[in-house]
Amino acid sequence: MYNPNERVVQVAVIGAGVAGLKAASTLVNKLGDAQVVVLEAQDRLGGRILTDTTSSKLGLNYDLGAAWFHDSLTNPVLKEALEEEDKSVFDFEKDAYFDDKDTQFFSSDHDGPIDVASLKINRVSEDLEKFIELYFVESLEVPDSSLEEVNSKFFEKYGKFLTDEQRHYCRNIIRHYELWYGITWDLISGKHAIMDHNGRNLLNKNGYKFLIEKLTSNIPSQSVYTEQQVVSIDRKNKVHDKKVLIQTKQGLRIYCDYIVVTVPQSVLQLKSASEYGITWNPPLPSNITSALESIHFGALGKVIFEFDEVWWDPEEDRFDILADITPGFVASQEIKSPPVPFSYPAFVVNFASVHKEKNLPGGSLVVLTQSPLTQYLESSPASEAWKFYKPMLAKLALPGKNITEPINIIKTNWTNNPYIRGSYAALHTDDDPSELIIQLSGEFDGCGLIDKNIRFAGEHTISDGAGCVHGAYMSGLREADWIINDLSDSISNI
Amino acid sequence: MYNPNERVVQVAVIGAGVAGLKAASTLVNKLGDAQVVVLEAQDRLGGRILTDTTSSKLGLNYDLGAAWFHDSLTNPVLKEALEEEDKSVFDFEKDAYFDDKDTQFFSSDHDGPIDVASLKINRVSEDLEKFIELYFVESLEVPDSSLEEVNSKFFEKYGKFLTDEQRHYCRNIIRHYELWYGITWDLISGKHAIMDHNGRNLLNKNGYKFLIEKLTSNIPSQSVYTEQQVVSIDRKNKVHDKKVLIQTKQGLRIYCDYIVVTVPQSVLQLKSASEYGITWNPPLPSNITSALESIHFGALGKVIFEFDEVWWDPEEDRFDILADITPGFVASQEIKSPPVPFSYPAFVVNFASVHKEKNLPGGSLVVLTQSPLTQYLESSPASEAWKFYKPMLAKLALPGKNITEPINIIKTNWTNNPYIRGSYAALHTDDDPSELIIQLSGEFDGCGLIDKNIRFAGEHTISDGAGCVHGAYMSGLREADWIINDLSDSISNI
Repeated sequence: MYNPNERVVQVAVIGAGVAGLKAASTLVNKLGDAQVVVLEAQDRLGGRILTDTTSSKLGLNYDLGAAWFHDSLTNPVLKEALEEEDKSVFDFEKDAYFDDKDTQFFSSDHDGPIDVASLKINRVSEDLEKFIELYFVESLEVPDSSLEEVNSKFFEKYGKFLTDEQRHYCRNIIRHYELWYGITWDLISGKHAIMDHNGRNLLNKNGYKFLIEKLTSNIPSQSVYTEQQVVSIDRKNKVHDKKVLIQTKQGLRIYCDYIVVTVPQSVLQLKSASEYGITWNPPLPSNITSALESIHFGALGKVIFEFDEVWWDPEEDRFDILADITPGFVASQEIKSPPVPFSYPAFVVNFASVHKEKNLPGGSLVVLTQSPLTQYLESSPASEAWKFYKPMLAKLALPGKNITEPINIIKTNWTNNPYIRGSYAALHTDDDPSELIIQLSGEFDGCGLIDKNIRFAGEHTISDGAGCVHGAYMSGLREADWIINDLSDSISNI
Repeated sequence: MYNPNERVVQVAVIGAGVAGLKAASTLVNKLGDAQVVVLEAQDRLGGRILTDTTSSKLGLNYDLGAAWFHDSLTNPVLKEALEEEDKSVFDFEKDAYFDDKDTQFFSSDHDGPIDVASLKINRVSEDLEKFIELYFVESLEVPDSSLEEVNSKFFEKYGKFLTDEQRHYCRNIIRHYELWYGITWDLISGKHAIMDHNGRNLLNKNGYKFLIEKLTSNIPSQSVYTEQQVVSIDRKNKVHDKKVLIQTKQGLRIYCDYIVVTVPQSVLQLKSASEYGITWNPPLPSNITSALESIHFGALGKVIFEFDEVWWDPEEDRFDILADITPGFVASQEIKSPPVPFSYPAFVVNFASVHKEKNLPGGSLVVLTQSPLTQYLESSPASEAWKFYKPMLAKLALPGKNITEPINIIKTNWTNNPYIRGSYAALHTDDDPSELIIQLSGEFDGCGLIDKNIRFAGEHTISDGAGCVHGAYMSGLREADWIINDLSDSISNI
């Protein structure tokens, strides 16, 4: 008898973000429609890819989640997008922009942009980053310390190389990394802070939704279940001759041979007693649970201010607004009352420059936010975001122009989303990124689960492209390929 | 009977450049005056450190050889100079300058500086360098190819990422490396071209002569022999109970237990029949002679133009003048008739900016030259250098100003110096830098000579700081320490 609350398949993918959809799409191609299901807790697909196409009063698309193709020289998602014949899916000329003109810097104590070129601010930044790298590679015994601490060490040791102005403006310029990791410099692991990129970052102007649409195009809708929150995974199941039983809060039961778990690290590390946690039966072994605690989760957010006038420089791509130094201020401390402007640095992407060719009747500034500011702003009315950023953004006003009130404010809400809980994995001081990847990637024998039919994918399970769309994408492909290979092995063994 | 043409000592150092003098100075400190001699072929000390203090009509010092402290975060020579208590030896505030403001670019087809910031030229350069790195690390099997060839591959593969102007101005921007290695891009090993620096390059405004003076301060003058060109090294000597006999063209005979050979790689690789070569008895084994042929020697030179008026931007540190593209032009080909301006890129250091605080009645431009241009210019009258560079330097003239005739031209002469023969070791395509270092550094057992009392030092014998003053310096220290250690071992073994 047909039971609408039950499905028996070969593979179930948990989570319909880019990792899950890439896995499912690959599996459907190989195993056919009937053998793959995707379970998604939210009412929409895409996970941390979320292109807002409706909120803008300027007619723009905004990626509230992932927005850039990172590592553009080696990015496989970009490579495939470029090979796309159907230009309505992705058109490099129209849809992509390298928003990487030399960043303009602003500071509370200076009118107009700081003369970065004459002050050689970028040379100091480069030296500072190199110092941090060298500091930790000098010996394996150097203990990790926060980005804030190792920054101080640079100024102690090499402050004498700098001019007074360089010392002043560069004293916390390294906080820029807060807007990369989504956590503050007193938490960021100094050891893992400095990254090497394989090429420029390419902004996806039209939004990453093209990728979700492309990936779902070959997955039949009856294989995709939204609003199905997985509450338990029984990996010793015997019913229906399937090894795994997945149950959702909404009462769906999936019996299958393989699962690909792509829920964020923030969900995976929830205790089973938690309202949004998954109960594993038998429980996950300690090698995995302790690895899950060896890294943290950041909270990168965005606030988008739209204006009916462009009162800032439309020719610049990016603005860095430096934070003030307040003795005793602990940047990571939870924010309970309106924060003081300039207490956190801001990184602002100029969408007036990004969309220059559109000749819009106005323009927008996309401001990236870091924890704990993200939590505060995402839980407050939009007016709070404006109150905080207005004095900072006012610095961007061109001579003779004044900052105007925004006509629209769009905010992210990742930290209040119980299925996401922030942005992506982030390394606090003393965190060990390799442990979780080794345990979850399934690339090494003797690691992970004994039952190899339980697979993990997502940005937190991979080194190349960690925290990025292309990392998640490749991890989904990796697990689909593993399952396909395992299935063909079992067939040839018969 | 005392013979003025004979000395019997423990250690002889061949070559009084920075490597030889550091070795000798260290050895004298430990073994005493009487046990160390230094043999120098030229009539002056310093080798490829040569500070010209007399030629300038503006009262400036010019380093005709090494001029910068490279890797300033880890440079041991700089570190010691900074610790110097006697500020008349080295005074960071007065004697050093980070001449690394964002470089201005000029091109034959453009008036005034190219708008590097708006065109994002530096982003393209960074991508290009990253591409070259990635190209060769992708697999160990990727064969080496010239910088020119791998540059073409970048434009083939990633030209689509660039704007028309970026493609135009960046098409041979990588030739900038010619002014680092002293050879042209059709020869430079792509595999070894891209370097990682440990910090900014610090220009030594007053000249590196301070270092030579410091190193020689504890070496008694009777231990230093100038104008003594070593013609033979007998390493099976038995006379005077010493293992080695060194003979010079001028008739000096040194009997010793240890030698430190610091002559340039360009001299070391000369056949013994050559007028300036060294005859080894027995000959050097093939592992060393073939390693000596596994790398080449560059010819970085300088032409310094002094003017009684500063008609260029006194606020800029560096100017890069891009070369034109001429189909079929082979950059490395020997120059027999006056070269066409813009056929080689120029790298110009603005000494008006470097010495800004002096308020000079004029200023100078220090132009770096690469092989084969260096050979041509060093063998031609100074007017030839002006003829070649004038149309290129004219691009630097500020609006409303015109280029003026120089009041003085100072040129290097390294390629005509038979004891130097160029600048420093340089890697052609397919060269293997590690082989020579392994053979000469004495750091690995089973390599180099069986008679371990024959030591080698110099910029060509070391990885960290290869081609640099601090590399040469540390190699000299390394060999002195080795000998001191070996001597104390022999004593304790008795």
